[in-house]
Amino acid sequence: MDIRVVLMHPQEEENVGSVARVMKNFGFTELYLVSPCSLGRRAEALASHGLDVLAAAKTVPSLESAISGCDIIIGTTGKKGGHQTPKREAVTPEQLGGMDLRGRVALLFGNEAHGLPNEVLEKTDFVVRIPTNPKYPILNLAQSVCIILYELSKRRLTKTVRGKPLRKEEREQLDRFAGEIIDKIYEQPHQKRLVHSTLNRVSGKSMLTAQEGGRMISFYRKILRKL
Amino acid sequence: MDIRVVLMHPQEEENVGSVARVMKNFGFTELYLVSPCSLGRRAEALASHGLDVLAAAKTVPSLESAISGCDIIIGTTGKKGGHQTPKREAVTPEQLGGMDLRGRVALLFGNEAHGLPNEVLEKTDFVVRIPTNPKYPILNLAQSVCIILYELSKRRLTKTVRGKPLRKEEREQLDRFAGEIIDKIYEQPHQKRLVHSTLNRVSGKSMLTAQEGGRMISFYRKILRKL
Repeated sequence: MDIRVVLMHPQEEENVGSVARVMKNFGFTELYLVSPCSLGRRAEALASHGLDVLAAAKTVPSLESAISGCDIIIGTTGKKGGHQTPKREAVTPEQLGGMDLRGRVALLFGNEAHGLPNEVLEKTDFVVRIPTNPKYPILNLAQSVCIILYELSKRRLTKTVRGKPLRKEEREQLDRFAGEIIDKIYEQPHQKRLVHSTLNRVSGKSMLTAQEGGRMISFYRKILRKL
Repeated sequence: MDIRVVLMHPQEEENVGSVARVMKNFGFTELYLVSPCSLGRRAEALASHGLDVLAAAKTVPSLESAISGCDIIIGTTGKKGGHQTPKREAVTPEQLGGMDLRGRVALLFGNEAHGLPNEVLEKTDFVVRIPTNPKYPILNLAQSVCIILYELSKRRLTKTVRGKPLRKEEREQLDRFAGEIIDKIYEQPHQKRLVHSTLNRVSGKSMLTAQEGGRMISFYRKILRKL
């Protein structure tokens, strides 16, 4: 994925630093700043290990130079689009993450106080809006960047979090063992069915990893031997 | 959803303020602070329109008081669990958002520099980890809270209502019975611990209803009688 993060007129250096950090967290590196505030020690402190992203950021004078060379221009907004023509329909960050984004993509974020102006939003291919509490929908700038980059990288990076899933054969073995135990300890067919389906549902909901499933199988096997 | 956000020993007031803001953005209000840094004007500035959440935050001296009254305790970590016993398998924020969380939930976040210590993680029902770039996996505290609350609130409006959650006493009974069974069928203390904590984690992750829990208790009781 070839994503350029563009901050339009950011006014708080802490936010620019935080954006650099979170870009690094999610594996993005290309940061463009359109006429930003001055960046000093606070920006560097908040960039933390994303300091290289901050140091390599390009400062440009206009939107045009920020999106030059990009194939897809994506805007972001905290406001419900309703009064413009044409009415702006936003996608959610989750939908964005599911898209097949090819080519060079520019992701535009507006200034902290005003967001992206309508004339910029009109130039984008589409707009992303984060679902928030209608009573206070406006996220901090770096938080907005965070959520959108999180969704964009989620599918790619998720494999780092979870262990291997339990395979079908092992799930079936678990199910078989549970059935055998139940057969030995319950009398009534009705009760057997109830308990068996409860156990299946519980293990289904817990999204067992291969390791967890293996231990449960061993647990059931040991019970069966003793019964 | 009844979610309490618990920050353990936060050391930067800006982060506490940012957390209050993002809680408000996603419609959460209950913030507990365990021995936080002192909170002044910077925290208030960053809380922005989430100032009411910050003002209502409870400062408590210990984890125990922070999770008192909660039915489900969820930890967060930026580290891959690998060197602990048992190996800690995490769920993703997306999986968390898809869970049927009922009862009162405490979401624990560690200190900026150290995260949650292992002895706290071991006490949780399960752990959430945000998929990040392995080269720099550690997110800013407020960014972590942001992503997890975002995922938790994303599906809120489409949630269907289900049965009552399993109460704490019943969870404890389930845990006790599991321990008694394990005692009878395993030899080595190391294996007993592994299997016991796996069973606990699996039932923690499956968000048992009172009915499902009741059937599991009956299942274990019957096994115990036969053993």
